[in-house]
Amino acid sequence: MDKNVLGTNVIAQIGIIVKDIEKTAQVYADFFGVEKPPINLTDAVEQAETEYKGNSTEARAKLAFFDMGSLQLELIEPDQHPSTWREYLDEHGEGPHHIAFVVEGMEEKIKVMEANNMPLQQKGEYTGGRYAYMDTFKDLKVLVELLENDK
Amino acid sequence: MDKNVLGTNVIAQIGIIVKDIEKTAQVYADFFGVEKPPINLTDAVEQAETEYKGNSTEARAKLAFFDMGSLQLELIEPDQHPSTWREYLDEHGEGPHHIAFVVEGMEEKIKVMEANNMPLQQKGEYTGGRYAYMDTFKDLKVLVELLENDK
Repeated sequence: MDKNVLGTNVIAQIGIIVKDIEKTAQVYADFFGVEKPPINLTDAVEQAETEYKGNSTEARAKLAFFDMGSLQLELIEPDQHPSTWREYLDEHGEGPHHIAFVVEGMEEKIKVMEANNMPLQQKGEYTGGRYAYMDTFKDLKVLVELLENDK
Repeated sequence: MDKNVLGTNVIAQIGIIVKDIEKTAQVYADFFGVEKPPINLTDAVEQAETEYKGNSTEARAKLAFFDMGSLQLELIEPDQHPSTWREYLDEHGEGPHHIAFVVEGMEEKIKVMEANNMPLQQKGEYTGGRYAYMDTFKDLKVLVELLENDK
């Protein structure tokens, strides 16, 4: 294992897979006494260039973000197309899916992680940046998402 | 659903259930480039007054804490006695188990949550405070732990 692979240990986000994001986002909003956030749909594959296990996928997800102290809690409702989100829901049901870290130099981080037997599982672009889910489950017992924001 | 039940939305901790805490703590330490923290055993039932689903239990767990930004990541290796930790490992395998919040007036918070169909699952004492795992999975898709520290 290479050491200090990410160059950070600040958890920026926790992602939770849900079946009905409208319903669960409302429960979160009520339980924590905050406004229900807008629910966004990830971009289509043409724009997001989404790849899952090395193949292009039409998968999209509905997302809702809550600010919970210094980090975000992200609710994710997957569609039916192949994705890390869909696979998690089919195999595990609803629940916590990943912890995310903001990194610099994502391509290099992915290479180092893959060299350490933590394969890239899914990646895509969003307005202002890109993400990569790395299969760290065997080592860290949770998936790690890398986030890189444009400057 | 009562609103703003906890009086806080600051996530203080993420708890991950593991089978071999020595091994996984070392992987975390290497991956994030930090010292491997000490591994502590929770107190015995006489001191911790541990209750799981309303019954006293001899369950104990090994714990390791990593500071990951403003929150802690907690690794938990359960023993064989009945507990929320053991149940999670038996039913789901290793993985993320709870998010925790520091509250004031725990007894009152537990009452309000139970009145909202979020039952107390496990509670216990530790040096300087107490914890309660609430079964929020149906509503929030993750367990919530309440932490109350003595002043």
